[in-house]
Amino acid sequence: MGEFELIRHYFAAASCAQAGEGVALGIGDDCALLDLPAGEQLAISTDTLVVGVHFPESPDPFLLGQRALGVSVSDLAAMGATPVGFTLAITLPSADPDWLQAFARGLDQMAQRCAIRLIGGDTTRGPLSLTLTVFGRVPKGQALTRSGAQIGDLLCVGGELGDAAGALPLVLGQRQAEQAVTQPLLARYWSPMPQLDLGCALRGKATAALDISDGLLADCGHIAAASGVALVIEQAQVPVSTALLAFAGEARARQCALSGGDDYRLAFTLPAHFLLELQQMGLPIQVIGRVAAGEGVILLDSRGQPVQPPRSGYQHFGSACD
Amino acid sequence: MGEFELIRHYFAAASCAQAGEGVALGIGDDCALLDLPAGEQLAISTDTLVVGVHFPESPDPFLLGQRALGVSVSDLAAMGATPVGFTLAITLPSADPDWLQAFARGLDQMAQRCAIRLIGGDTTRGPLSLTLTVFGRVPKGQALTRSGAQIGDLLCVGGELGDAAGALPLVLGQRQAEQAVTQPLLARYWSPMPQLDLGCALRGKATAALDISDGLLADCGHIAAASGVALVIEQAQVPVSTALLAFAGEARARQCALSGGDDYRLAFTLPAHFLLELQQMGLPIQVIGRVAAGEGVILLDSRGQPVQPPRSGYQHFGSACD
Repeated sequence: MGEFELIRHYFAAASCAQAGEGVALGIGDDCALLDLPAGEQLAISTDTLVVGVHFPESPDPFLLGQRALGVSVSDLAAMGATPVGFTLAITLPSADPDWLQAFARGLDQMAQRCAIRLIGGDTTRGPLSLTLTVFGRVPKGQALTRSGAQIGDLLCVGGELGDAAGALPLVLGQRQAEQAVTQPLLARYWSPMPQLDLGCALRGKATAALDISDGLLADCGHIAAASGVALVIEQAQVPVSTALLAFAGEARARQCALSGGDDYRLAFTLPAHFLLELQQMGLPIQVIGRVAAGEGVILLDSRGQPVQPPRSGYQHFGSACD
Repeated sequence: MGEFELIRHYFAAASCAQAGEGVALGIGDDCALLDLPAGEQLAISTDTLVVGVHFPESPDPFLLGQRALGVSVSDLAAMGATPVGFTLAITLPSADPDWLQAFARGLDQMAQRCAIRLIGGDTTRGPLSLTLTVFGRVPKGQALTRSGAQIGDLLCVGGELGDAAGALPLVLGQRQAEQAVTQPLLARYWSPMPQLDLGCALRGKATAALDISDGLLADCGHIAAASGVALVIEQAQVPVSTALLAFAGEARARQCALSGGDDYRLAFTLPAHFLLELQQMGLPIQVIGRVAAGEGVILLDSRGQPVQPPRSGYQHFGSACD
């Protein structure tokens, strides 16, 4: 078995060579074939992860497999789409069987959690990088875009923010702490679970949505720009985990929650009359502000006064929320 | 404008930010959205091209853009699919505006020739590589797979083979020759035009098909294995261009035609009664052999005697058909 046949071997085991729901033809031909039920649209997103840019050198392959797929599927959650399949293009300097087996296991574990299946891919030799393209289905006209936020809507997020950015000193081996503190932070970084249930529930209700990958402030800026409105955020309402507070202290925790990326929780705008219904479904919805006339993102302190944001964006793991 | 906003700028210009036929939502949101007419399936293929593996260091960016998309769309032709859209994940060491503009022009030129539109993508910093995922539509149940070849079918190809492999000494700057000879060879390498019309015409007629990327012998081996048959190739019937003969001599031209990859012409198996009808449509169909009982690929000389193939496969541009 050649080096790269070895790779196909591992991924064939963790995938679907056969047809299944929505997948008429899987791995092994020139193309995969998908069926789409009448009245549905196909949602598609592509993400590349490069070693040294999106993850540290020599990452744990199991965790990398989990994270790579979780990050990609999160874009489907952000559109309110139901996962169907994904392709994986993997470039590797060499084909180490142990590495590949662990990576494929991590990928497969996240695939099972998201009910998504590997339908095709490509393997090449070169510096480690991954490009995943994910496919989901969504009822026609019900996809959650960034452009529909209406003045008066609530601004919400799908739970605590900042854990992934706060975990970076741990990911990079720069700091250590008790496991009770580090474990939830590292889990958020390495196994970001796409908020698929939340995304589905928001169909026909949220007026705009995305997943937070660049940081809350930067991503709210994307919604504001696409919708032609201003988003007002009450800083004190942005939820932060006790683990992050314990690990990073309040000032830095707040900074990570506002500007750190990689949380992959949803941010969305919602007409107020839908809030109670969605919260009663047990969905993790936190109101952090509202949509107003104007442009850009306005951050308010606890007295309702505008404050200067700590920084505007996030440049991948290397620069984090410093 | 930041470096990578610059990139988005170039590709937004060469693509569709707006909706259009089959594309309900293009670039700029978490996902693109595709519509699929009732009774059709979506064909999907992913290809990665890495500098130094699939193309030389410092390639001409215009030609690279053309070739990258042509190679990817060829997989749609091989399935008999009609192109709809593609995503581009590009990793670049730096964002040189001249390079990007030329690359985007090459990409756009091939996109227009194939009637396919850029619907999304990702840009990252790192060693130059490209991952394209292409989407096409095909009537349900009519996609051309590799697995249906029937004993007695004709084995055909979509025209002359070997030009792209024969061009490699030119691509690599190792040889020079008159332009009348080099131009058609280099064009085949850098601007492989997917055989979309041929693929469409073969729907419901060809029993198996693929595009020749690994070399005729290796790719016929894939059809033979997937279909559980043997493919018999009459060496003298494999068409070779006069340019290749002039540049490389007969022995090497033959070797390139049999074992060189990167031609991206179709190879397919066809019940004999369809041949005349298809040829009368003006399609470039050459019969080179037939499907027989057994397994693997059998190469016959002009006296009908089995001969040893020159080599079994092709390992990308570096090793070509040597």
